[in-house]
Amino acid sequence: MSASNWSLTLAYDGTDFAGWQRQPDQRTVQADLESALARLAGARVVTHAAGRTDAGVHARAQVVSFVMPRPWDAAELHAALLALTPPDMHVRAVRPAPTGFHARKHATARRYAYYVGCDADARSPFRRRYEWAVGRPLDPAGLAAAAAPLPGEHDFRAFSAAGQVKSHYRCNIAHAEWRERPEGAGFIFEVEADRFLHRMVRFLVGMAVDVALGRRPAADVGRLLQATENTDASPPAPPEGLYLMAVRYPKPDEGATG
Amino acid sequence: MSASNWSLTLAYDGTDFAGWQRQPDQRTVQADLESALARLAGARVVTHAAGRTDAGVHARAQVVSFVMPRPWDAAELHAALLALTPPDMHVRAVRPAPTGFHARKHATARRYAYYVGCDADARSPFRRRYEWAVGRPLDPAGLAAAAAPLPGEHDFRAFSAAGQVKSHYRCNIAHAEWRERPEGAGFIFEVEADRFLHRMVRFLVGMAVDVALGRRPAADVGRLLQATENTDASPPAPPEGLYLMAVRYPKPDEGATG
Repeated sequence: MSASNWSLTLAYDGTDFAGWQRQPDQRTVQADLESALARLAGARVVTHAAGRTDAGVHARAQVVSFVMPRPWDAAELHAALLALTPPDMHVRAVRPAPTGFHARKHATARRYAYYVGCDADARSPFRRRYEWAVGRPLDPAGLAAAAAPLPGEHDFRAFSAAGQVKSHYRCNIAHAEWRERPEGAGFIFEVEADRFLHRMVRFLVGMAVDVALGRRPAADVGRLLQATENTDASPPAPPEGLYLMAVRYPKPDEGATG
Repeated sequence: MSASNWSLTLAYDGTDFAGWQRQPDQRTVQADLESALARLAGARVVTHAAGRTDAGVHARAQVVSFVMPRPWDAAELHAALLALTPPDMHVRAVRPAPTGFHARKHATARRYAYYVGCDADARSPFRRRYEWAVGRPLDPAGLAAAAAPLPGEHDFRAFSAAGQVKSHYRCNIAHAEWRERPEGAGFIFEVEADRFLHRMVRFLVGMAVDVALGRRPAADVGRLLQATENTDASPPAPPEGLYLMAVRYPKPDEGATG
């Protein structure tokens, strides 16, 4: 019997997970998914995710690669995973993958969305898990000004979690835009890049909201893009507003959009 | 010091509660609310809710009455309750009430909404707590036909939980309508009546969905309204789609809509 390579697309409500990555004594997305795969494989199955989301961060279309020790029918594997995974995660699709496919290393772009709630209802128990309840109006011009300098390749280390050591801190942002939500509910920040540093989207949102509240000038964004250390960025926005929306690969059918 | 009478409007995500009503060793809305009130009062405070929602059922505007042993400033009482209640419940407003006000006994009407999800995304982890994921198209004409016989006063015992003993089973439905949700997401059933029997909305929804799927004729609804025992109604719809939306009182400012 020969091993088989797989890729799957996964949505999850991150609220009750301590993030993607397996950790001792914590409920994580990777641990729950690998536990289901181990039951099907009869052996440990290692998974790799395109984006290692933090505690509380959601995914609409996380992409995960893994190798099963034996061949499977894709529809049967999908059905079995649906049955063995908890209700706050949802395996949306399962696809055979080329030998050696690695969901993180082979990804060419990731897209994130961040939801901000501006109306009083943002604090309702039905929305609190899924967006940042700022609970007051934001100046759309301030949000736009904070996003304007982002596209292109920059050193984003001023917008990343302190202490993260990387071979380099350059990311190429293809698209960064704030969109207004209907009925005054707030705004959505949409951003796509080849890679993201740890907590980078949340730092960018924290800055933009401070600018939109008039707490600091929009020019600070451009200034911090020139900085070579984590200096005085605004605090990162909380995790509950952040969603991994899509992952891109050289062959479109290896990922999925959501 | 004299006692003070109060009414409050409460929203909650019912997912992680064993319903409204206090029960031994269970997390309930009433227990969490009374625990907060007891800390403020220094004594047990008994609450009465307009609708005793079941486990998993949500509220956008539950109305609750209670008596505090001493006078309070309404804004201070509201702020203190916001601080002492858990994040999946939200005290929306606190109002002084007339002496003897009882949120359940004095209510003249309740309005409920039931959300049904028909698209494939209804099973997503972001919607599963908040609607019934039927996951397939429903015939709008079938839903309308199932709702048409409901308005007016009828004996609804065929649409109530078996074993419930009541002095009478008549309810007067002022309004019952299925509305289509945007983008093919599904439907919302909106129903208002002077009173509801236990699980009555969920039984009505279970019937309507069976009719809309072609599993039984719409005429069964009218037939069951003539029945004097719980006969062959369809199984009740699950709790996660149901919301207590509003409660009406003779004086409009005693309740609140949501």
